[in-house]
Formats: sequence, C-alpha cells, structure tokens
Amino acid sequence: MKTRLAASALAVVAAPLAAQDLSTTLPDAVGQVAPKLETYAQNDLFGSVWSDEQLSMRDRALVTFAAKLTRNETDSLSEHVALALDAGVTPAEISETITHLAFYSGWGNAVAAAESAAPVFEERGVSSEDLPAEDPELLPLDEDAEAERQDFVQSTYGDVSQGVVDNTEELLFRDLWLRPALDPRDRSLVTVAALIAAGQPEQMTFHLNRAMDNGLTQDEAGAMLSHLAFYTGWPRVFSAMPVAKDVFESRRQ
Amino acid sequence: MKTRLAASALAVVAAPLAAQDLSTTLPDAVGQVAPKLETYAQNDLFGSVWSDEQLSMRDRALVTFAAKLTRNETDSLSEHVALALDAGVTPAEISETITHLAFYSGWGNAVAAAESAAPVFEERGVSSEDLPAEDPELLPLDEDAEAERQDFVQSTYGDVSQGVVDNTEELLFRDLWLRPALDPRDRSLVTVAALIAAGQPEQMTFHLNRAMDNGLTQDEAGAMLSHLAFYTGWPRVFSAMPVAKDVFESRRQ
Amino acid sequence: MKTRLAASALAVVAAPLAAQDLSTTLPDAVGQVAPKLETYAQNDLFGSVWSDEQLSMRDRALVTFAAKLTRNETDSLSEHVALALDAGVTPAEISETITHLAFYSGWGNAVAAAESAAPVFEERGVSSEDLPAEDPELLPLDEDAEAERQDFVQSTYGDVSQGVVDNTEELLFRDLWLRPALDPRDRSLVTVAALIAAGQPEQMTFHLNRAMDNGLTQDEAGAMLSHLAFYTGWPRVFSAMPVAKDVFESRRQ
Repeated sequence: MKTRLAASALAVVAAPLAAQDLSTTLPDAVGQVAPKLETYAQNDLFGSVWSDEQLSMRDRALVTFAAKLTRNETDSLSEHVALALDAGVTPAEISETITHLAFYSGWGNAVAAAESAAPVFEERGVSSEDLPAEDPELLPLDEDAEAERQDFVQSTYGDVSQGVVDNTEELLFRDLWLRPALDPRDRSLVTVAALIAAGQPEQMTFHLNRAMDNGLTQDEAGAMLSHLAFYTGWPRVFSAMPVAKDVFESRRQ
Repeated sequence: MKTRLAASALAVVAAPLAAQDLSTTLPDAVGQVAPKLETYAQNDLFGSVWSDEQLSMRDRALVTFAAKLTRNETDSLSEHVALALDAGVTPAEISETITHLAFYSGWGNAVAAAESAAPVFEERGVSSEDLPAEDPELLPLDEDAEAERQDFVQSTYGDVSQGVVDNTEELLFRDLWLRPALDPRDRSLVTVAALIAAGQPEQMTFHLNRAMDNGLTQDEAGAMLSHLAFYTGWPRVFSAMPVAKDVFESRRQ
Repeated sequence: MKTRLAASALAVVAAPLAAQDLSTTLPDAVGQVAPKLETYAQNDLFGSVWSDEQLSMRDRALVTFAAKLTRNETDSLSEHVALALDAGVTPAEISETITHLAFYSGWGNAVAAAESAAPVFEERGVSSEDLPAEDPELLPLDEDAEAERQDFVQSTYGDVSQGVVDNTEELLFRDLWLRPALDPRDRSLVTVAALIAAGQPEQMTFHLNRAMDNGLTQDEAGAMLSHLAFYTGWPRVFSAMPVAKDVFESRRQ
C-alpha cells in the first residue's frame, strides 16, 4: 500500500477514483474465506454502487468514512482515509469531519480515527497549514433559528441537564457548526451518515432537513441510503427509511 | 492454541464440544482481574447454558459467531470460528454466514470476520473446494411471497431510495437468500441473532417469522434469546423479548 | 506511560486527578490531525467538564470506564483503568464493574476489559486479596420488590424464554446485584451509563430509578448525562434525555 500512498501525492489534485483503489479495502482473506463476498464487492459494491452517479464518488467516500468512524472500524480506517483523499476530500475536510464526529459519534471514535489518519497524512506530506485553523472567522449564524432551537431545548431539558443544554449551544451550535472548514451541507451529510450508522434514526429528522436546507438533494439522500446499506448493514438503513420518507414528504408540502 | 487447532483436524467430523473448548474463549486475564467472572463463565455460561439441550451446541456456536461478528469483536472471533467448527458448523457454513452478514451487519464486520477466519481455515486445511460455490443452482423462490414483499417495499420506499429497493430485491431476495450453502432456517437464525446483537428488534418480526416458517421451533428461539443474553448483554435481549412474544402469539392464532 | 503507572502506586490513596492525567487519554495523533479537537479536549472536556463539581471526578472516571467498556473501545481502555484508579475507584470496584457489565454490555466486552485492566493491575501491584471475594456474604434482598419484579417478568415472558426469566432472577437479582464489592448506587450508575452508551434508553427507566433510590441525586444524574455526551456522542444522550425527564418528574410526584 505504501507505494500507492506515496505515488498519489496531495489530494487537492484528485485523480478519479478507480476500482483498484476500492480494492485496497478488500484484504486477501475475503477471497480465501468467502469468494462470493469478494465477487459481490468487486461486481456490485465497487462496480455498480460506487460508480452510480446519483451521488459523487467524493460524497460516497466522505459518508463511508463517517460511517466507519462511527462504527469504530479502526482496522480499515486508514485505507478509507486514503480513499477519501483520492476521491477529492481534502485533508482539512477529513480533519474537520473527525473533530465534528467527536461530538456526534463519541470522543474515543474520533481519537481512534485521528490515529488512523495520522500515518496517511504523514505519507502524503500533509502539513499543519493544510489543516483547519483553530479559531477561524465563523460562518454567520441564523440567530432566529438558533434562538428557536435553544428555547425549545432549554424549556424541555433545562431541568434535566443544564450542562447538556449549555454545551449544545456553546460548543455545538455557536462554535463547531459554524467552523468554515467543512461546508454546512457536508457537515450535515456526515452527521446523518453517523446517525444511520449508529442506529439512531430517531435523531435524524432535524439533521436530514438541515442537510437538505443546505443543498443536499433528495436524489443524493436516497443514493446515500443505498450506499450506506452496504457499510452499515441493511437493517440500519431500513430503520432510517421511514424517517427519510417523512422528511421528503414534509418538504414537498 | 496452535496445537489445539492442528490436532482437531477438519470440522466435518465434529467431536462433541467440551468445556475445555469453550475455555479457549476465556483468557487468563479474566481470572486475574475478575475471578468471579471466570466462575460465572465456567459454571453458568459454559456449564449450564451451552449444554442446555433446548438448542444444539452447533446452533449455539453459530449464533454466538453471528452475534460476535455483528458486534465486531474481532479480538476473539478466531477462537469462535474454531469453536463453531468443533461444534459441527462446516467451513462452508462459516463462509456463507460471513457473506450473508456482510449485508445484515455491515461490510466491514464481514471483512474483519474473514480475516479472523482465514488463519483458522488454513490451520485446518480448509481448501477452496470446501467453500460455497460462487454461482450455484439457487434454491427455488416462492414467487408469490416475494412479489408481495417487493410490492410493499416498492410502494412504500420507491420514492425514498429506488437503489435500496432494487438492491434488496436483486442482491438479497433473488440471490443471497437463495444460495444453498446455508440452510434457509440457519440463514434466518443468524439474521435474527445479528438483529438482536445490533439492537434492532424493530426489524426482527419478519425474520423471526421466516426462521420459524423454515423450521426453527419456539423452544429453540427461546433458548437462543437466553443464550444471546450473555453475549449481547441482557438489555439487548430484553428489548427483543416483546417482539418475540408478539411473533409467538401471532403464530398460535 | 510505564513511569506514570509505576509512580502512582496503589489507588487506595488517590491523588487528585489532574489535567495531565486526563491528557494520557489524548494521543499525539489528535494534535497532528485535528488540532481543534485537541483544543476542545484540553479546554472543554478536560478543563471544564471533568472538573465540574456536580459529579465527582471519581464518579466521572467510573462512568467513563463503563461507557468505554460498553462501546468496546479496547484501544484506550487501559488508560481509563489507570485514570479511574487515580481518581479513587478501587481495584475491587474496577473488577466488579467488569463482572457486572459482562451481563449488561456483553460477555466479550467484559473479557476485553479484563485484558485491558490486567497489565495496569500488574504494574500497580494489585493482588488477588485486593479483588472481590468470589462468594461473599450477599447484601440483604428486598424480597417484596424482587417478588414483584419476578412476578411481572415471569407472567410477561415465561412463555417466551423461561431461560431468560430464570437466569435474570438467579444470576442477576439474587446474586450479582447483591454482591457487596460495588455499592448498589454505583452498580446502578454503571448500568445506566452502559445503557446510554449502548443506545438503549428504552431499558433505562428501571435502572435510573434504582440508582436514585440508592442515593444518586438528580444533579449527579444530570451531570452524568452532560459528561457522557462527550464519550458516547451527543445523539445517545439526547435519546436518553426524555427518559431521564420522565423519571425525574415521576419522582417529584
């Protein structure tokens, strides 16, 4: 793998993702133990799913990384960081996705993902200037929408855990979500992928709406569900489908 | 462990599973750190649960493997592959369970399971002829039942994600589920075990009914719940109990 | 890390937990890949959250360990065992938490946690006398409450899985829960933390009530939610908040 990593240079110039790149995520053991699984991977997952144009390869690589981070699949996360870089996700976006998902998928998962990304970043010569600024100028906040969200959470949960309410406002919605290193649409995209991967469709309505408010199309969302079925297992996606259906229908009205 | 693996030869001639086999899944650290846990393991889990005759040792080994694959417990999956082979699960059934659960528990988990199984297969001299054919003659399909399932899914979710609908039909119900390498009853059994392990009882009704249509008895299903409580934790099973109760009651009417 | 472990001696004399202790759970890769995540960790998680006095550092270390065990974060579990010992959790309590969570978070997770704890115990000279007795005098049982619980479970699930019903009574409520090595309040605390971490708020009502019956205050429960948001991800806690709200309200009446 080292050769491939060294040869592909910085991800800012993304080469089109090819089947042989995807194959780096398929160790030889699969063919030795379950030849049919290798065939499904090569023909269907890598052959048809990844190349389906309803969702870009870049988005597919990003949501796959988010799902695997959430599932703590540390053994194969390095390959998926490399894959994402090859598909046009920037090192800054990988970095910011890890930071973001610390809050959505759990601190330990993000820490483990940083450990998986570090050697790939080093191989590719990613330097600290390629990473998100610590204290950038934040994106503008929709104060009305935030006030509404905060009022609801404060009045509903203030007497359950004021700490949760305060951290949600101060750390998440007045800081993390406004960091420019990840486009709002992408930030919502990885959040939705994380919720599907974690089996938490009950938290998905808000974030899928937000993703679509920020530019995710319904076709892209549908293609993401189809893509994630492979990486999270079918049942996770089938539990998410009714929520997506409700969101899609409510937005048509 | 190498000695044991080499000595036990091919699993087609299964020796009865003994307590000392189960003990291979209990590292010394357990006794050093939590002696009472070791006692619970030896007396209760290995002593009473595994030997309870309501569910065969072979089925117990298969559902344990399915649950651990689903929970991505890669550190101890090799021992459970060896255990399953000792209990009479064939290499082909292990292989096909991995392929099946790629779709139900997530691709990465199946890939990791293949990596855990590969050295065990090699030690035992499992060759490619012992594995499922890639394109076998498929089992006959109940076209009416499949048409009904497909109509429901198409009409409910066709405008959410046509990709999910199509892949579910073409890859799962018209291909994977019809592969003869795993008996339909066993295929449903590992699916139900995976759903319990993943904490997805909301997806269990269809598959538990299917398992019982294909020969799983209510006593076996009840014993599986009792067995899995240890491997998935009690709460996963208590969340599955109401679903099992509903299925059992609906089938009595 | 070896030096720190050796220097800190037996945990019975707990030194106050300092920021540099918490930093042992933050590998260098985090700063290299996601500098802002390191800042959030140092300023917010380690700086404000852990030092918030609504919940003791000792309790924070215990629930963090329980959450990470439940999420099977084996890569960083040794550091969190060391941290818990530094914060005043005794080796016996660590041992008993592992035994307890075998039943609540899954056998494999507990076995993996024992493997993570063993080297830390060895470094610190923890001997078998420091561990819980295998067959101690059990705490007194509230026979009326247990009869009520058992009657409900027997009548509801006896014909689903008598094995689950029997093991729940004999192994859990007439044995495990009565072992004196972990205070009933703490046993409930780690159980609730495990349920939040596993995404099973539907099983939390009984155990949060039990924790509060045994002395956990509402402020402590609220602070635990705020603390766990970081370690399990925000969505797990937001799914647990309505359950906590209901429990808090029902206890006020």
